[in-house]
Amino acid sequence: MAQQHLDPPTSSVAGTAPRAPAPLDEGGAPIGDALAGYLRAQATEFLRSLRQHRETGAAASGAGESGDAARSLRRSARRISGSLHTFRPLLDADWSEGMRPELAWLSGTLAREHAYAARLERLLGALNRLSGTAVVPAQAGRAPAAAPRTGNLTVGAAKAGALLDRQLTLARTRAHSAALQALGSSRFHAVADSVAVLASEVPLAPAANTTDLRPLAAAAQDRLTDAVTALPLVVAGLPYNAEALVHGLSADTAPQPQDAPWHQVRLLLRLHRYASEALHQGECPVDVRLLGAGKALNRHRDAAEAASAAASAARTPRIAPATAYALGVLHADQRHEVEAARFAFQQAWQKEAVRTP
Amino acid sequence: MAQQHLDPPTSSVAGTAPRAPAPLDEGGAPIGDALAGYLRAQATEFLRSLRQHRETGAAASGAGESGDAARSLRRSARRISGSLHTFRPLLDADWSEGMRPELAWLSGTLAREHAYAARLERLLGALNRLSGTAVVPAQAGRAPAAAPRTGNLTVGAAKAGALLDRQLTLARTRAHSAALQALGSSRFHAVADSVAVLASEVPLAPAANTTDLRPLAAAAQDRLTDAVTALPLVVAGLPYNAEALVHGLSADTAPQPQDAPWHQVRLLLRLHRYASEALHQGECPVDVRLLGAGKALNRHRDAAEAASAAASAARTPRIAPATAYALGVLHADQRHEVEAARFAFQQAWQKEAVRTP
Repeated sequence: MAQQHLDPPTSSVAGTAPRAPAPLDEGGAPIGDALAGYLRAQATEFLRSLRQHRETGAAASGAGESGDAARSLRRSARRISGSLHTFRPLLDADWSEGMRPELAWLSGTLAREHAYAARLERLLGALNRLSGTAVVPAQAGRAPAAAPRTGNLTVGAAKAGALLDRQLTLARTRAHSAALQALGSSRFHAVADSVAVLASEVPLAPAANTTDLRPLAAAAQDRLTDAVTALPLVVAGLPYNAEALVHGLSADTAPQPQDAPWHQVRLLLRLHRYASEALHQGECPVDVRLLGAGKALNRHRDAAEAASAAASAARTPRIAPATAYALGVLHADQRHEVEAARFAFQQAWQKEAVRTP
Repeated sequence: MAQQHLDPPTSSVAGTAPRAPAPLDEGGAPIGDALAGYLRAQATEFLRSLRQHRETGAAASGAGESGDAARSLRRSARRISGSLHTFRPLLDADWSEGMRPELAWLSGTLAREHAYAARLERLLGALNRLSGTAVVPAQAGRAPAAAPRTGNLTVGAAKAGALLDRQLTLARTRAHSAALQALGSSRFHAVADSVAVLASEVPLAPAANTTDLRPLAAAAQDRLTDAVTALPLVVAGLPYNAEALVHGLSADTAPQPQDAPWHQVRLLLRLHRYASEALHQGECPVDVRLLGAGKALNRHRDAAEAASAAASAARTPRIAPATAYALGVLHADQRHEVEAARFAFQQAWQKEAVRTP
């Protein structure tokens, strides 16, 4: 069971749906029924995760089984939403357009708690690496209240860790409450009802019985390829190009405008992956190159947000200079992680281009 | 003339000495006379630079012709000292052992002023890159006296620039005075007298007429190769290994113990180069691979010292958190330059290994 809660990158359709070959039209093309099968499977998985989430107790703070269930919920919501977008012409337009923002709201709300926890873990891990000692939250809390002015750097790291722990734990707690509130809201119940309908009866458009899924999936791939082509990949492929930290001290750092095209590619890569899943229905081979590219972009996003959190913590009033110094080192470290992730993406993507000429 | 003041990496013997083929023994091996010719040429260049330095006025602060002359003086002093070391068995032992520390003292004293100026330039250049605005010393000086607590990052960068400018300009001024004092000292006059003797009569040992220079030069190359073999080149060859910033926030950062073997290789590479020059006397081809390796190690040293200067400035009492934050970013940026330089060295050295199997 546990394995289903992970997010396999180019996975088979997860969950309880039967794994049948994709329905084809008379000419052998996958059509509306194939999409309906994929959407039903995702909807079923969504409902299963929701049930599990309620059973394991939503009060648990994002960890353990409850966290797994929330992740699984988000995973299905993303796949349903992505498919509604990519295969829009095959679906009832009003229903589809009404559902997408609701799914986005839900997965966004559910993602936040986990994101804050992961960000804190990433930043404390980096501080440990940078200071050569364990700056675990507990230890960070025991740091002296006033750092000596002359700045013991390790004290700075411990105080920076304590500050980040305080800020991100607070944010996480708030996100947890918001998620609980969302799951009890009538807005959520409306989404769940829509998904329940989807699990039994996908509202296909009349065109669905004659429309080939493949051109729509190919269009999703084209949008990805175009967006990748617009990335500064030549620079990203030169190690230590020092681009990610450019303007790292300029007045308006958060969010870095240079990150946006990479975040966009991350979303388009996901849509491409979901489109392949819908097309191949459980017989989709794992593409290790796309997997590598996707992992690099996840790391890019995580590091960018961690860098931003460090910069933001440094703007806390009345912090000691040693704390601010440690946060500066940490910010730059995470921006270099951003650069490293772009390099990793470039390397993975190059291989991809060679494989599919 | 100006070209002679530069420091060509695997150059011909510079300066006024005649460029004759190296004297050989009956079997065709370069022996003591070849070494004597090289040392005489370097000694002549030393005296010429000294004369030029006096003429252009030692009061100029390390820039322009006076700076060129000082650089040229150091350049000859390093070559003489290095040759005394590598070809020790061919030279009068007492004289040679007395002279080396004096030459080291002289080139060390003369190098410091330039080093502080270059370090400041490197750090202000990095701050400009990081802040997206010109943090030139003049502008840095105009930064508001008190940064807002909430930390405008650009203000932090400007204040960090002003602080570094103040500290490194003071250090540079002191180094300039120390250099002037050294050049007027009886200790310096004794060194200059020894070099003047060297320019006419190299004190060779009796063995010099029968000793082949090549095994001694080969031993210098072996010491280099052994030291390079001991470097963590596999890690250095993996881009973004994040090694240079490890322990960047530990209590004892200056100097980083991990840098020492690289600095050592830099010195051994120089000794190897000087030994080749002595062996080939003006007919030494430029080895672009060793040139690349040497440049990478210079960059490594410069970035390591700049990172250390940023960390040290952050320990200044009563600085604003925004200033400390900017110095932290700057420190990490320069430590990544250190890592980039190691990668560049690894790449250059790999090519070298392929070329000379």
